[in-house]
Amino acid sequence: MKDLKSIRMEKGLLYETIITTKNEDNIPNAAPIGVICKDTLEIVLYLYEGTHTLQNIKSNPHFIVNITKDPLIFANSTLGDLSTDYFEKCNDNYYIKNADAFFIATINSIKEVEKEDNIGKSRVNIIRANVDEIIIKNEPVEPLNRAIFAIVESLVYFSRIEIVNEETKKIYSKRIKEMSRLVSRVGGIEHKKAMNNILKHVENK
Amino acid sequence: MKDLKSIRMEKGLLYETIITTKNEDNIPNAAPIGVICKDTLEIVLYLYEGTHTLQNIKSNPHFIVNITKDPLIFANSTLGDLSTDYFEKCNDNYYIKNADAFFIATINSIKEVEKEDNIGKSRVNIIRANVDEIIIKNEPVEPLNRAIFAIVESLVYFSRIEIVNEETKKIYSKRIKEMSRLVSRVGGIEHKKAMNNILKHVENK
Repeated sequence: MKDLKSIRMEKGLLYETIITTKNEDNIPNAAPIGVICKDTLEIVLYLYEGTHTLQNIKSNPHFIVNITKDPLIFANSTLGDLSTDYFEKCNDNYYIKNADAFFIATINSIKEVEKEDNIGKSRVNIIRANVDEIIIKNEPVEPLNRAIFAIVESLVYFSRIEIVNEETKKIYSKRIKEMSRLVSRVGGIEHKKAMNNILKHVENK
Repeated sequence: MKDLKSIRMEKGLLYETIITTKNEDNIPNAAPIGVICKDTLEIVLYLYEGTHTLQNIKSNPHFIVNITKDPLIFANSTLGDLSTDYFEKCNDNYYIKNADAFFIATINSIKEVEKEDNIGKSRVNIIRANVDEIIIKNEPVEPLNRAIFAIVESLVYFSRIEIVNEETKKIYSKRIKEMSRLVSRVGGIEHKKAMNNILKHVENK
């Protein structure tokens, strides 16, 4: 059986995916959701209260994780409801037709916790799920991980820090720190090492 | 002969690469540089005055474009000089040993222009170069393009706009606009369509 390595998901990293679920009336829903690769056949997600995805998986423990880099799918599923043309059925569940790969997952446990970030406190549900079946539709599959982007962003700001005024310098340092938080949340060991190097150089500027 | 499609570079998009050159004393240099895929065998780059890369290619018209997502190579070649352990020779030129792919390019023309951005005016050299030979070392090769990341970033800010205070809201709108400028510089048609959808929704918030 294929495991998450077959779609290049590495243990410990968080990937941007589109999760498809259906409600009790069989209406499909798609939402962009970060998926942590916990092990070769296990994932973890954080779902906020009040989202369709959470409601749907509470009534049906199977859901589909779609691997895609299609910008319109990310944009349209965030800005509103994704048009039904995008969905297709696999057994009893919906997936995104033009995803590069998708997998069926089944909930193992749901744990509700309180989370605090820079915006405030919120109730969040930690979902652990097992990977049942992986279907590859379009090789090469590379799931979307934001760590290298955060590093490139930080390096762009770093390169400009010397040539901008004090106010902009502060904004850039703040951005680099935000990008560093992103890397510690989504990245792997090498990403974290690179980010640490950047932070050390920023301090010395 | 292989062309840029073999390493999944699409016409019109800008990719983040590492360019390796050597100076007159045969000392290798590596720098992170954006490369526009102009055609299947033609690229364009913008190089600022005073950079080693520009000095080196003015004395030797051949250079190497390395395709990698290694975070330490990006960080270390920006923060200082990349350690010589990273380089290897191909004929007379240096490439990055653990790049997924690289290609040898030869300058076709250099045009100096004045460029103005939000930081100020600067002299920039527009380099057109032909692709001579592509070497793939590690499949699948996927060159680094920032457009989908800029879209995901924008969507993250968009989702939070409703729940933050007015001041933060302004910062987020500004960020989305920056990300939109990035997409128009580096992205393809679908990225631009997605970004336009986001901007329309931001205006209505």
